[in-house]
Amino acid sequence: MPSLRKDPIMGRWVIIADERAQRPQDFHAVVHQTERTSDCPFCEGNESHTPPEVHAHRHDHSNPDQPGWKVRVIPNKYPALRSEGTVDRKSEGLYETMAGVGVHEVIIESPRHIISLTEAPADTVRAVFQIYRDRLKSLKKDGRFVHGIIFKNVGAGAGASLEHTHSQLIVAPIVPINIWQELTGSLRYYNDRGRCVFCEMMEEEIKDGRRVVLETPHFLAFCPYAGRFPYETWVVPKDHNSHFETIGKPALEDLGRLMKQVLTNLEQKLDHPPYNYIIHSAPFDQLGLPHFHWHIEIIPRLTQVAGFEWGTGFYINPVPPEIGAKTLRANPPSQDPGHGSITNG
Amino acid sequence: MPSLRKDPIMGRWVIIADERAQRPQDFHAVVHQTERTSDCPFCEGNESHTPPEVHAHRHDHSNPDQPGWKVRVIPNKYPALRSEGTVDRKSEGLYETMAGVGVHEVIIESPRHIISLTEAPADTVRAVFQIYRDRLKSLKKDGRFVHGIIFKNVGAGAGASLEHTHSQLIVAPIVPINIWQELTGSLRYYNDRGRCVFCEMMEEEIKDGRRVVLETPHFLAFCPYAGRFPYETWVVPKDHNSHFETIGKPALEDLGRLMKQVLTNLEQKLDHPPYNYIIHSAPFDQLGLPHFHWHIEIIPRLTQVAGFEWGTGFYINPVPPEIGAKTLRANPPSQDPGHGSITNG
Repeated sequence: MPSLRKDPIMGRWVIIADERAQRPQDFHAVVHQTERTSDCPFCEGNESHTPPEVHAHRHDHSNPDQPGWKVRVIPNKYPALRSEGTVDRKSEGLYETMAGVGVHEVIIESPRHIISLTEAPADTVRAVFQIYRDRLKSLKKDGRFVHGIIFKNVGAGAGASLEHTHSQLIVAPIVPINIWQELTGSLRYYNDRGRCVFCEMMEEEIKDGRRVVLETPHFLAFCPYAGRFPYETWVVPKDHNSHFETIGKPALEDLGRLMKQVLTNLEQKLDHPPYNYIIHSAPFDQLGLPHFHWHIEIIPRLTQVAGFEWGTGFYINPVPPEIGAKTLRANPPSQDPGHGSITNG
Repeated sequence: MPSLRKDPIMGRWVIIADERAQRPQDFHAVVHQTERTSDCPFCEGNESHTPPEVHAHRHDHSNPDQPGWKVRVIPNKYPALRSEGTVDRKSEGLYETMAGVGVHEVIIESPRHIISLTEAPADTVRAVFQIYRDRLKSLKKDGRFVHGIIFKNVGAGAGASLEHTHSQLIVAPIVPINIWQELTGSLRYYNDRGRCVFCEMMEEEIKDGRRVVLETPHFLAFCPYAGRFPYETWVVPKDHNSHFETIGKPALEDLGRLMKQVLTNLEQKLDHPPYNYIIHSAPFDQLGLPHFHWHIEIIPRLTQVAGFEWGTGFYINPVPPEIGAKTLRANPPSQDPGHGSITNG
């Protein structure tokens, strides 16, 4: 059973995966290449190569773990956290630990062996985000868990070990340090100025315009003013809301179209870079926070995050966000026919 | 001139290097290989290939920028920050920015083309740490700067672009986010419990013993309880002190020997992995903080810090620190003759 341990300085929880403890020589076997195989376990017809599905969007009359699905959710075969057991928080001297209880799932976004979600129609992109929402809604009923994070790794350089388009969900009894620090920072801003920092930021970005990548009725995609990485892009809902899983149908439709377009632009302009996106949302046990605003961070992995940024805490971004946004919004590719127009900011 | 921009949510400052703004296609030229060249600019005899030195330990009667040095400090040829100008802090709407003023230096640790500091005698290791101290002492007199960070990248996988053993120093008008968060976290602990968290941690580690890598009269090297990375090792002075640059001669001697041994063990046990070390020290403008304790973090780069840990804030460490420490302290290599004994914890 993995355990969670808390760093007493930072308040950062770390998963200690002792049951798959590695010896020094094991690390040399780490493969940094994306696996290419004709027996891709995520392809339709190979359902028996994965753990049984926990959820799927399926064609009528198709059966679980059989072909006939559009989007399929399975437990991660090598989960970071285990779903059985109790949280069992305890102290060891000045340290704190708890059992590594949680849920780690994989969302397979297409039955076909496509590499990018952008190769799927906007309807599928919408369906993927809908499934994220539905899984979080379902899992937050389990009182052991306080937070859910959804993320996507595209390309070996961004941590993907399989190329078939997919994303991941982790639900845990702790709040990850990144989110915790955002909650703290946005609360400080709210206490100082009485407004949500994300709402103020969007007003500023729309007024200024230089960092806007795409504006739709429900969302703003922009390169943040102090972006750490070249072409870093945030997608923020225009209406204040702290929890992604409360998203409604019109906003989901809009988000599916926006994400398809923003990711397509990114892939075309940057020549199909490795990238990640991560949904930042508030903890399950806090409802309707006035200071926090859910959002998606899209991070192309063009620079090596090596000793410098990563160890020192100094991020160096060689592409000013104004230039990044200009590149990403230029000559948007034509949209899916029949999905309505998108206001391009 | 690079600029610094502050993220209003996290309070994180980012260096925007607009004068070397890159186009998308420039990133594909990024070389992730360490440069190997017979004309290494860091080798003795090639002093004219670098900017003029700012400091050096030299043999008697040798001249600046000529052969005859033992350790040499030069400005970084591609500095992240520029030393000319004023800080010039200002607001842009809700955002804050300032000029990218600072100092970025390279410490060349040997006139010979050696790849690792461990190939140098313990005396040289001590001299390197003494130079770190002396440079910080000198640079902190410049009222524009509030913090100095010293770090070392070994191997291309850890961000080194030249293989000749060296380290780097950055002095800046801001405190990097990592250090800022440690200051905040350790202050919270101090307010709660009335003691320095690092001091308490060392007591616990010495009592427990399982995570100790090496104990010397002045220092403790141990794998932290909630270490994020396999074989992550911290080196902490036993006497409480918030500022590295106040280190005295006996502790410097001890640190030189300890670092040589800890890094030698790490290289031998883990088959010469890429790694970083970073000195975490308190801001220049704060003196004698009771809650913060300077220390060195040594991070072997065995796992790919990819989408997972990095985007989600969930760190997964596949080597429990107890096992990491056991590996690192086993069969220590023989010490330099004539440098006295080291108590091995």
